Amino acid sequence: MTSTPFVLPDAALQRFRETLPPDAVHVDQADRDELRDPYWPAGDRTYDSSAVLYPSTVEQLQEVVRVADELGVPVWTSSQGRNNGYGGPSPRVAGSVLISLRRMNRILEINHELAYAVVEPGVRWMDLADALEAEGGDLLLSVPDVGWGSIVGNSMDNGVSYLPNGADFMAPTGMEVVLADGSLLRTGLGAIPGNKSWHLYKRGLGPSLDALFTQSNYGIVVRMGVWLMRKPEAMASLHLSVPRNDQLGQAVDIIRELRMSGAIRGVPGLFSFPILAWQFPELGEYMGGKGALPEEEIQRLADESGLGRWGVRLGVWGDAPVVEHHVNRIKERWAEIEDSAVTHDARFTREQWGPFTTFGDKINGAAPMLDMLDGLPPGIGHLAFSPVVPLVGEQVQRLEGLLSEYVREHLDGNLSAAITVVNDRSLIIVVELDLVMGDEAQVRAAYDSLRQMVEHFGKLGFAEYRAHLDIMDIASEQLSFNDHAYRRFVEKIKDAVDPRGILSPGRHGVWPAAYRGGKAPGGR
Amino acid sequence: MTSTPFVLPDAALQRFRETLPPDAVHVDQADRDELRDPYWPAGDRTYDSSAVLYPSTVEQLQEVVRVADELGVPVWTSSQGRNNGYGGPSPRVAGSVLISLRRMNRILEINHELAYAVVEPGVRWMDLADALEAEGGDLLLSVPDVGWGSIVGNSMDNGVSYLPNGADFMAPTGMEVVLADGSLLRTGLGAIPGNKSWHLYKRGLGPSLDALFTQSNYGIVVRMGVWLMRKPEAMASLHLSVPRNDQLGQAVDIIRELRMSGAIRGVPGLFSFPILAWQFPELGEYMGGKGALPEEEIQRLADESGLGRWGVRLGVWGDAPVVEHHVNRIKERWAEIEDSAVTHDARFTREQWGPFTTFGDKINGAAPMLDMLDGLPPGIGHLAFSPVVPLVGEQVQRLEGLLSEYVREHLDGNLSAAITVVNDRSLIIVVELDLVMGDEAQVRAAYDSLRQMVEHFGKLGFAEYRAHLDIMDIASEQLSFNDHAYRRFVEKIKDAVDPRGILSPGRHGVWPAAYRGGKAPGGR
Repeated sequence: MTSTPFVLPDAALQRFRETLPPDAVHVDQADRDELRDPYWPAGDRTYDSSAVLYPSTVEQLQEVVRVADELGVPVWTSSQGRNNGYGGPSPRVAGSVLISLRRMNRILEINHELAYAVVEPGVRWMDLADALEAEGGDLLLSVPDVGWGSIVGNSMDNGVSYLPNGADFMAPTGMEVVLADGSLLRTGLGAIPGNKSWHLYKRGLGPSLDALFTQSNYGIVVRMGVWLMRKPEAMASLHLSVPRNDQLGQAVDIIRELRMSGAIRGVPGLFSFPILAWQFPELGEYMGGKGALPEEEIQRLADESGLGRWGVRLGVWGDAPVVEHHVNRIKERWAEIEDSAVTHDARFTREQWGPFTTFGDKINGAAPMLDMLDGLPPGIGHLAFSPVVPLVGEQVQRLEGLLSEYVREHLDGNLSAAITVVNDRSLIIVVELDLVMGDEAQVRAAYDSLRQMVEHFGKLGFAEYRAHLDIMDIASEQLSFNDHAYRRFVEKIKDAVDPRGILSPGRHGVWPAAYRGGKAPGGR
Repeated sequence: MTSTPFVLPDAALQRFRETLPPDAVHVDQADRDELRDPYWPAGDRTYDSSAVLYPSTVEQLQEVVRVADELGVPVWTSSQGRNNGYGGPSPRVAGSVLISLRRMNRILEINHELAYAVVEPGVRWMDLADALEAEGGDLLLSVPDVGWGSIVGNSMDNGVSYLPNGADFMAPTGMEVVLADGSLLRTGLGAIPGNKSWHLYKRGLGPSLDALFTQSNYGIVVRMGVWLMRKPEAMASLHLSVPRNDQLGQAVDIIRELRMSGAIRGVPGLFSFPILAWQFPELGEYMGGKGALPEEEIQRLADESGLGRWGVRLGVWGDAPVVEHHVNRIKERWAEIEDSAVTHDARFTREQWGPFTTFGDKINGAAPMLDMLDGLPPGIGHLAFSPVVPLVGEQVQRLEGLLSEYVREHLDGNLSAAITVVNDRSLIIVVELDLVMGDEAQVRAAYDSLRQMVEHFGKLGFAEYRAHLDIMDIASEQLSFNDHAYRRFVEKIKDAVDPRGILSPGRHGVWPAAYRGGKAPGGR
């Protein structure tokens, strides 16, 4: 990871200054450090930007991109840049100009009849949820754990959220995109001026492009439709326990069958005990980051807490009798797990939607918040290793064993894992590796472990759904079928739509021609 | 539409003969005519192929594509090529070599635990449904009206099917694709050799490509995962009446709210009276194709039938008490429509799944069939004009009025329309234009009307979800935002991934460089 950074020419900086208002161009290191991966060692400049730009409008952004294209300046875009477990807003190529879209934060439309909103990339979960509440609270936004992130940004990384529209990336629909030459593209039926189905229909006429702009660098999404849920008659917010590690597989199989029967929609979360502590303040002292406890000790703490070795958060939304029936089915099936318990069962109605006091109720109630930031162990950062796994108990159980062993041996920790069941057939297991902030040797060792894990578990068939900045190349290297046919294909597209290779070079392993074969700073 | 056809060089034909078994290469006109649009005037060779090839394996297909790429021969691919309302298997460029994938008809996997199958493009709805039945009938395939089509082929055109997995194109997941150089690409996590989540997870690492291969010509999909539904505890198959035309909007609004509440999943169909006759044999003599009846007469026939001026087919699947509750909700809401009726309400259980006697029960029961072929008026073909419309009663009502008026004035007919509610926010209204087979003047007039309708209704903001072969260019011309930014973008991709422009040139308006500006036969 020692490569020469791109050096921003003075002439380019001058052009950016001419393009944007004075307060939208920052080059001081302190200012740049406000938008960098907070976990990466402070003295290490591998992923630093050379400048941070804050356009406020699509037109300003277009002009910035035109300048970058003209002068061959690599830019890296972040919306809010809040997902620090994957590298935050830092660019892949050192010296890139970071374009933060935080100031492009308008909610362009809220449509109550058809239950969708249209947002710019700077709009946070909290912003849209507040706006929906202000307009009567008839519509619910599917939300993730922490409310400060960008709705668009999360979608651009195939990120997860937990209400029914969060399953299978259903919410994002219809985009406006700034291309590498600064021009605008609209996807789907948005390509037809004035068409009313832009944000309503998942395809268009001809090839569909929405998913081409996620985890990629073919354009900058500046407007996106996001589907909302009509507030249902009733909601149940549940927490269920899985008392022991070796029951995880059984729980996964039960969840699959409950999903397939329609009892569970949404995106349930299964949290290993250390992660439960991030959500239940009363467990605060067991939240990890202090070296591995013996498994017996973790088990004892889990038993004492009554929350389980794993805790499961899920919501049920619908007509009142349907919620009642489905909750009963869920409880019946859950009772098959020996010694398991329903540790939380709160009911809400359309008329009495809240108040929400627990973390899980807030998630299921579509009330985004920052509570988890308080729940994180102080002085501890996290790196995420996040493979996709078939929704089959035996496979999840086996992987849990391998991961626990790996984390204990190589990282002196207990497995901190959050499983999200993204559809009826697969799940993502997000393994959080502790970073002891300020202890550079430990931090570097954790990054080394992350790299090793990607390769080690990759060989076992478990691939990342999303790669941390530092391991994008290693992760994408695994897409090797037919001599990397996938990479060659997406590179051809990259070269065709961004011939100078200025947009986020290296994002998720997609490098433009100018950077391939080590021909440019930081390239592959 | 008078352009010189591509002339297949003898040397190319010779190479195809060397590549495939003798019975897999057909050049006689009679053989070619077996795979052409059956509705296009017989003497008009605008959309004829020069040869038909029937590869049986991926390897044979790869070799055919390699030869075509080497020699610059345009090929047009069809799976079953059964959707005659959109041009059947005919190629856009006359003289193209037609590759029929009918012999690539293996079911590669049926996974009961995770409820999916993997199929080749020659597999028909009936084939997979039969195989599922033979393996115990625990899994249901979301099916369309006619069972003889290809599952893959339908997906490649963003076609619709009616069970819950039919909504929003949810079923297709994970593809293997033959590219223009004959090499193989796997999408999603399939790019990782041996990865078990290829057909389970909707995205991959990096840009997601599945939707890029639908309605396009970037590759030939030779393997696709298709999600199935676990057979539910109960199913209700309903038909509801909308007594009068002016109640259509009210019905649409009710369906939207029932969908948003979770009572309706699946893809309900609303059929105008002439189309009801295709499904209800007792209405056979009123099935259209005989010139317009006065509206009063149609209304009288609809009243007499008791089926409604519009008839609505929908299914409810789930646990028994949930189905009961949701059916009651549907009936309560439907009773708001004056004089409406529940004209059919059949219940089935997991243990008693059938026998299905009505068309609607077969659809809702996932039992694909060919009944509609018998129901079509004899000697009448159909062209489809199929705009996407927001799921808002007022908009649908207005469009219905405009369409009815247009069809009566220009085509001397009553509106034959099938509305499919593809998700919670939009629907597709498929308008079937009658073709009196053998009356070439009438047939040509109908095609002229189709072209006019695309432009006329396009200007009103109603865009095709899918374009008939003959109007692909007109329809795609409407994607004009920012000086056709969409077209310029997808053309760049086309030129990058198929530089010689051999794969299905012109499909859904995507032309390779060699054909643009009228530089090659049949080009734009």
